[in-house]
Amino acid sequence: MDEFALIDALHARFGAAAVSEHMPVGIGDDSAVNRLPTGHELVSSIDTLVAGTHFPTDASGREVGYRAMMVSLSDLAAMGAHPLFVLIAIILPDDRGEWALEFASGAAEAALATGTFIAGGNLARGPLSASISVHGSLPAGSAVKRSAAKSGDTVYVSGHLGGACAALRSGLKNTGFNDRYWRPLARLDLSNALRGTATAAIDISDGLVQDLGHILRASGLACDLISAAIPIFPGATLEDALYGGDDYELCFTLHQAPGASSGPVHLPGWPGPVYPIGTLREGSGITIDGKAPSRSGYRHFV
Amino acid sequence: MDEFALIDALHARFGAAAVSEHMPVGIGDDSAVNRLPTGHELVSSIDTLVAGTHFPTDASGREVGYRAMMVSLSDLAAMGAHPLFVLIAIILPDDRGEWALEFASGAAEAALATGTFIAGGNLARGPLSASISVHGSLPAGSAVKRSAAKSGDTVYVSGHLGGACAALRSGLKNTGFNDRYWRPLARLDLSNALRGTATAAIDISDGLVQDLGHILRASGLACDLISAAIPIFPGATLEDALYGGDDYELCFTLHQAPGASSGPVHLPGWPGPVYPIGTLREGSGITIDGKAPSRSGYRHFV
Repeated sequence: MDEFALIDALHARFGAAAVSEHMPVGIGDDSAVNRLPTGHELVSSIDTLVAGTHFPTDASGREVGYRAMMVSLSDLAAMGAHPLFVLIAIILPDDRGEWALEFASGAAEAALATGTFIAGGNLARGPLSASISVHGSLPAGSAVKRSAAKSGDTVYVSGHLGGACAALRSGLKNTGFNDRYWRPLARLDLSNALRGTATAAIDISDGLVQDLGHILRASGLACDLISAAIPIFPGATLEDALYGGDDYELCFTLHQAPGASSGPVHLPGWPGPVYPIGTLREGSGITIDGKAPSRSGYRHFV
Repeated sequence: MDEFALIDALHARFGAAAVSEHMPVGIGDDSAVNRLPTGHELVSSIDTLVAGTHFPTDASGREVGYRAMMVSLSDLAAMGAHPLFVLIAIILPDDRGEWALEFASGAAEAALATGTFIAGGNLARGPLSASISVHGSLPAGSAVKRSAAKSGDTVYVSGHLGGACAALRSGLKNTGFNDRYWRPLARLDLSNALRGTATAAIDISDGLVQDLGHILRASGLACDLISAAIPIFPGATLEDALYGGDDYELCFTLHQAPGASSGPVHLPGWPGPVYPIGTLREGSGITIDGKAPSRSGYRHFV
């Protein structure tokens, strides 16, 4: 397909997701132009999904497009930001024009579900992958960083963990788990509550132990987790919940909080239940029921 | 190499290019946080270079890193914007850790040369490519679009064309041309002059005839080019200048201008010479010395 014809077709698939009153220039010029709310700062991140590494080569474009958007937007949620727009760079083999259109449909669905606009992108020929740069905003100075957790804070997660890992273990053939892998929900519903109350936050893309470890290293602290308090997706294992990634729930810390307990708590100003799973203290590293984690933090880049 | 060790090493290579007083949060959190100048709009674009498609697989990381930055930043120049920051997503085969560090050095060099900051990025494993999302700003409402050219406007280019194409024709083995391919300069020096005076602008990535065609279609106009007026890079051919891409000079239109002439003109308020090469009129398409271009605009996506 001619590049420009394919770009026009992708633009059409984006539909209403490619139009915003806050976007004076969208798809079709050298750059997009966007307006930021007054007094806000810009929050930006980029993520890449590679065929064969991050999704099966035969996965449907629609599923990959939806998931790629949510995975990328999750980094905005982890800062307490509200989404504004994305740029989508697709690398596409020759025979993947139809796949790209399905990808665009899935991306548009995720954009409309989260109030995000698709401002532009790029098409290049090569081995299949998609990089999405996501951009949001928050009131100046209110970003929730990884580095400001304090000793004595309670550690929370925003939902059940391990479902996406269980789905991968089943080869994405267990319909009870598959939506946890293919249809993660970037927890942008928590952005307002996180800002001003959370001392630190991160999204769980690589597994609870790995990602909580980033908060601990950035803040110079240790954490004691209580395994019975960790919400495990029905049918998944504690191992899935501790070490499996891809759920895209948030892990965050609150200074004035009740401490770890078994089960959800309803905090004032939060839109739904959250799960206290442990406590921060001086030191470094993680304990689970008083013992070291069974797996190391080493990870080859993927 | 461990992913996180490689990210730390890349961060170190970025050096001063990864620090800015306008960037409260940089590399190392879920997202970067940037401040926009008051009263400005955000200008954003994304570009991808794929090994084997956009650069030779054995090209040095430093050259690719420098060029990838300039190619991407060129889209900000074409809007009349000033650069703020970039996000860099690299897809890397297993054995390319050192290459990635060289890429980072080249990207940092381009960042420092243009006053751009490296705010974050992503590393993924897979076939070699780099996608760079670039972000700049301009006073609200002043973006130079493709669509506002007017009949009677004079068409200009910002410098000599065809050098990068001649370099590619020589297999990147002619040292007289190679810098035009590997070391393009995003014409951000023209941003101030373009805003408010240019009716339309585009960067020449795919060749003058192709890219000027985008302005013509967006503005609903035709253009008559005078071949003798087109500045040709020494040693390149008129064909290189008309149809060869990769020079990353700008093509722009001015309403009150002297008309095409042979040679550079010095316009008040512009930092250097520019080259009038033709005139816009009602209609569609391009003529060169009164004849249709010898090549069609069709292009498979690359």
